[in-house]
Amino acid sequence: MDPFRFQVEARAGRARVGRLFTPHGAVETPLFMPVGTAGSVKGLMPKDLEAIGSQVLLTNTYHLLLRPGPERVRALGGLHGFAGWKGPWLTDSGGFQVMSLGHMRRIDEEGVVFQSHLDGRLIKLTPERSIAVQEALGADLIMAFDECPPYPSPREYLEASLERTLRWLERSLKAKTRPDQALFGIAQGGTDPELRRRSTLETIRFDLPGYAIGGLAVGEPKEAMFAMVELSTRLLPEDRPRYLMGVGHPEDLVAAMGLGVDLFDCVYPTRTGRFGSALVPEGRLNLKNARFLEDRRPLEEGCDCYTCQTFGRAYLAHLVRAGEMLGGILLSLHNLRHLHRLTEAARQAIREGRYGDFAREFARRRFGREVPPWFREALAAGGHG
Amino acid sequence: MDPFRFQVEARAGRARVGRLFTPHGAVETPLFMPVGTAGSVKGLMPKDLEAIGSQVLLTNTYHLLLRPGPERVRALGGLHGFAGWKGPWLTDSGGFQVMSLGHMRRIDEEGVVFQSHLDGRLIKLTPERSIAVQEALGADLIMAFDECPPYPSPREYLEASLERTLRWLERSLKAKTRPDQALFGIAQGGTDPELRRRSTLETIRFDLPGYAIGGLAVGEPKEAMFAMVELSTRLLPEDRPRYLMGVGHPEDLVAAMGLGVDLFDCVYPTRTGRFGSALVPEGRLNLKNARFLEDRRPLEEGCDCYTCQTFGRAYLAHLVRAGEMLGGILLSLHNLRHLHRLTEAARQAIREGRYGDFAREFARRRFGREVPPWFREALAAGGHG
Repeated sequence: MDPFRFQVEARAGRARVGRLFTPHGAVETPLFMPVGTAGSVKGLMPKDLEAIGSQVLLTNTYHLLLRPGPERVRALGGLHGFAGWKGPWLTDSGGFQVMSLGHMRRIDEEGVVFQSHLDGRLIKLTPERSIAVQEALGADLIMAFDECPPYPSPREYLEASLERTLRWLERSLKAKTRPDQALFGIAQGGTDPELRRRSTLETIRFDLPGYAIGGLAVGEPKEAMFAMVELSTRLLPEDRPRYLMGVGHPEDLVAAMGLGVDLFDCVYPTRTGRFGSALVPEGRLNLKNARFLEDRRPLEEGCDCYTCQTFGRAYLAHLVRAGEMLGGILLSLHNLRHLHRLTEAARQAIREGRYGDFAREFARRRFGREVPPWFREALAAGGHG
Repeated sequence: MDPFRFQVEARAGRARVGRLFTPHGAVETPLFMPVGTAGSVKGLMPKDLEAIGSQVLLTNTYHLLLRPGPERVRALGGLHGFAGWKGPWLTDSGGFQVMSLGHMRRIDEEGVVFQSHLDGRLIKLTPERSIAVQEALGADLIMAFDECPPYPSPREYLEASLERTLRWLERSLKAKTRPDQALFGIAQGGTDPELRRRSTLETIRFDLPGYAIGGLAVGEPKEAMFAMVELSTRLLPEDRPRYLMGVGHPEDLVAAMGLGVDLFDCVYPTRTGRFGSALVPEGRLNLKNARFLEDRRPLEEGCDCYTCQTFGRAYLAHLVRAGEMLGGILLSLHNLRHLHRLTEAARQAIREGRYGDFAREFARRRFGREVPPWFREALAAGGHG
């Protein structure tokens, strides 16, 4: 039996509940993956992630390539032996961070040469090298090496880039040797419908165990982003998981789940938590605001996370003001649980055939009377109108 | 029945196992109190402190006086309602931090005027004000307002200071109104045996529920410190808990427990953890050292803490090098558990009448063949020779 089989278990419109099998356990989709940039989700112990219902952790090939280095991680038993999280891992290809963090020196057909942001040394990353690194790290789900062009980019650049990304996908697949890892392809094409369509159709010709929608959430308008998500999930095969990379705002999850996206990741919940903000159904609470200093209520009524079950807003506001580490930790924990509860509620709504009601109730609390057009349109396109 | 009664349950030489009752539960002594400077033990959730066997948390009156302010903490239910730790709390008097952190402007018979290190405002702290603040915070164990003179101080200063501290103790007691808090007196006297004796004898005349040995671990030689501890525990009543303030190095705990000290606190285990060091029976591992980068062993063989049960040194060394918050968190957790295990093992050894063997085995691993004279002498004086 395929160790990475994906079963769609329920549908509502284009939204679906799925089960993705991996060598380190089966997970339920739609799901949100916390990001452990350098091999740890900042400030959170694996046992706490498990307790809040995290299922898959993502870590960045770029960061682990620089430090501690892939061969060291391999020698220490791969990510599963090294980092204390025994469930499935996903590694990205390193391409995105090379372009956003490294000082990129050259990109050509062969790959990318960049300067480490840590010590300035020059490092070459190619499809072959990215896969070799990801095989050393040993995640369950690995990503093809791709280029994620900035927004906006000229159409000619997008086109040349997506063609190269397709050639890099072919090289990534050829370089892959481990049968216990599933390689996902990444469709690009920016916000150009024709290029997005071409990239997606060419990518699915490789018949991969999963597909990512890449190159979005990089600054484009929401309308453009969701037009691309809508197009993508129409083209992608029903029987493979779809992963919308870098997306983690609750309203984006609800719109994208409605269109049939299964996997998400983003640093947003943990980063905004470290900066003192809490995700709630109405949006975001900035705990630096003086109005929380005497507020005994939990961050979110009805939330079952340790933070909400144990502390009031006043204490959390005190920790944030005092610069105490525990503030960012407790907010990160809540924010991740908030997204996990959102996907859990979405799964239940899909199973019960009422995703539209779920999404409208979400929108009522999140947006009040001002539901943005892109959100309505995504829901309508997903069959939840 | 006295809500703060203290029962000595077992003895070995001068070492003892005790049970101290408080309105928020009974605790076993000897014990080490983690320090939650500004109302949180840096980076650690109360549930994790509970899991490693923490029994009493200490927090600093000085810090909470400045932020969020005692009236706010009172309105939020006191420390027990505010900060998520449901067991006993201890607050210090604020005096020590005024002198070490604040810009002290004046000390006189009335009290201390200092400038906040946060915003520069002038604040007066007197015995009456310290007790009022500690009553608002609502810890189970509170401390008399004292002066802790620096080391070295001229004998004349020490003498005048200890006499004033005795008058401040009397005023602290008069100011106290809450029956559900126990006020401990603090003996001073520096390292002058005659002054230390006088301060201790005058302090115990107040017949208090507990006594602290103050003014030590401020830079004096170990010989001088333990001569004072030895003298103090000889003079202090057998039926009251003795608290050696600011002491948290394992070897100091073993020597002091042997002399009959019951309570300890120190930022050392958490601070050194945040700086990348782990306490082990042989001393301290600096995880920044390159030799740990490929070391799969736990920090301490046989340790039952989450850190040791889950991660190898290589991962922790990676986190420390990468500046990941989780490194300091996991090391702090281990270091506190290390001290808790040390006091647990000491209690068992006392109950079994073999504290000398316990301390010699500790010294063998900690010091090898070079057991320092102060340690031997403390053991001999404690009746474990």
